[in-house]
Amino acid sequence: MLDYASLAALAAVLREGGFERAAAVLGVTPSAVSQRVRALEERLGAVLVVRGQPPAPTEAGAILYAHAERVRLLEGELAAVLPAIGASQPMLRIAVNADSLATWFLPAAARFAERSGALLDLVTEDEGHTARRLRSGEVLAAVTADPVPVQGCRTVPLGAMRYAAVASPGYLRRHFPQGVDAAALAHAPLLRFDRRDGLQARWAQAALGLAGLDAPAHWVPSSQGFVDGALAGLGWGMNPLPLVEEHLRAGRLVELLPGRRLDVALHWQHARLGARLLEALTAEVVAAARASLPQAPAATPPRGERRG
Amino acid sequence: MLDYASLAALAAVLREGGFERAAAVLGVTPSAVSQRVRALEERLGAVLVVRGQPPAPTEAGAILYAHAERVRLLEGELAAVLPAIGASQPMLRIAVNADSLATWFLPAAARFAERSGALLDLVTEDEGHTARRLRSGEVLAAVTADPVPVQGCRTVPLGAMRYAAVASPGYLRRHFPQGVDAAALAHAPLLRFDRRDGLQARWAQAALGLAGLDAPAHWVPSSQGFVDGALAGLGWGMNPLPLVEEHLRAGRLVELLPGRRLDVALHWQHARLGARLLEALTAEVVAAARASLPQAPAATPPRGERRG
Repeated sequence: MLDYASLAALAAVLREGGFERAAAVLGVTPSAVSQRVRALEERLGAVLVVRGQPPAPTEAGAILYAHAERVRLLEGELAAVLPAIGASQPMLRIAVNADSLATWFLPAAARFAERSGALLDLVTEDEGHTARRLRSGEVLAAVTADPVPVQGCRTVPLGAMRYAAVASPGYLRRHFPQGVDAAALAHAPLLRFDRRDGLQARWAQAALGLAGLDAPAHWVPSSQGFVDGALAGLGWGMNPLPLVEEHLRAGRLVELLPGRRLDVALHWQHARLGARLLEALTAEVVAAARASLPQAPAATPPRGERRG
Repeated sequence: MLDYASLAALAAVLREGGFERAAAVLGVTPSAVSQRVRALEERLGAVLVVRGQPPAPTEAGAILYAHAERVRLLEGELAAVLPAIGASQPMLRIAVNADSLATWFLPAAARFAERSGALLDLVTEDEGHTARRLRSGEVLAAVTADPVPVQGCRTVPLGAMRYAAVASPGYLRRHFPQGVDAAALAHAPLLRFDRRDGLQARWAQAALGLAGLDAPAHWVPSSQGFVDGALAGLGWGMNPLPLVEEHLRAGRLVELLPGRRLDVALHWQHARLGARLLEALTAEVVAAARASLPQAPAATPPRGERRG
């Protein structure tokens, strides 16, 4: 078997972001941590950690790290039936897309944490990398708009995040004095969350038939910042309805075309690990999502719980 | 001189995150974009872009990208006096720490954008990388808690972000039935934003003399998520006062020790490029920060505008 003391040192270095911090958590000296990691590298004949600020895993390091965290999770379950084991508190690393993290996800996470006593390590979903992170085991599950099943994972539909195209009243007067039409939309500055954010373009296509929206964009990579950018008149943008409903009611924000919204289907993809904790989290997440997100109409068959 | 058509192709690939999207923005075919980038690579004898999803710059590619964006910024200023140039709309890439992005920064950004017509590309500050990004020119300026001057940059103090240690009333009853003291704090689950977030530990040290706080942590990398995590009872955490003031008044959140807050000094570091647009942005940012952030008391000499 692998040397799990060394593996724990490796995992602590990567989790805590440094050899000194890992040492503090493990209650040993930094040089002991460093020796353990080096011993593991020598035994496997591969560099596992690129030393830097913070230390970064190599591909092999990331695989071993994920393995160590899974073993820690399973060990945490043993402790429930064999308290003498005194395992450390289990931690689940979960990827969550930014708008879910800023709206419905955390109450479900808190309920799970309170009932299970487990800890959560939430990372922001990056669609481009989430499939890879799921495959390598770096995250155990993800809330994602990506429906493509990942090998070894189960995909559960969660419902849709509903987006409204909003701007401040002052912005609307400045950039759409003649009302919102395709010609004005093509030149009005908009907000984009990041390079993968095509929501504004999708809305322009769906609402006004404007293909390939190429308006000037301000980049604002924060869900709350996106709302604040609209409030401040920086640009128009697609915002999750729960984050802007009150501003719409109060007239601080207005919809470009009232009631013309866009639904984005969300999915829960999780490793088929059979760990009870992950099943408990799945149950909380799915229940919360189904209670707070609009569900696909019954007429449309759900995309199905893919079992890829 | 460099071949600026090729340089523009390289910059578009990196800015847009793909060859096809770059082609759409430049109004040429993807294969033309690809040829231009390859021509530049052949001439310089170095790979500039690692082809992937999304394409990533090599070190040399990042330097050329930053140079292209600076030239575009300066060119944008020419267009003001020589409209015939018809330069593209200038864009400024700025790093902003997450809590500033979620509180005071965007109104200043919106005023600047409206007055100048320039676009903003905001990226989330990552303390570990911001100094490097400033040095390489990848970002033109940064709102950061890091006061260490960067070569070629000017550092302007902005005032302090004030943080309160908060939790939900239910959480407080569960984890601090005997009141908040060092013994209970050492075991109560807390929230951490990311690996570099030592605010909770700093507060525990300052408020209760508890050194090296090592309580179990939930990781929540989102300013709004951090507030929501406290509201949902997931853990206690340090939140910017402007984001929690209303929740405190309404009793949805309570302070662990009422009035015991922590100030984090913020700085504006910007390239000494002499570009008028950057100076205009600096003026807006500094004015907004000084109006909305608590300033250092007059008795304490300000850390000074370092000119490192």
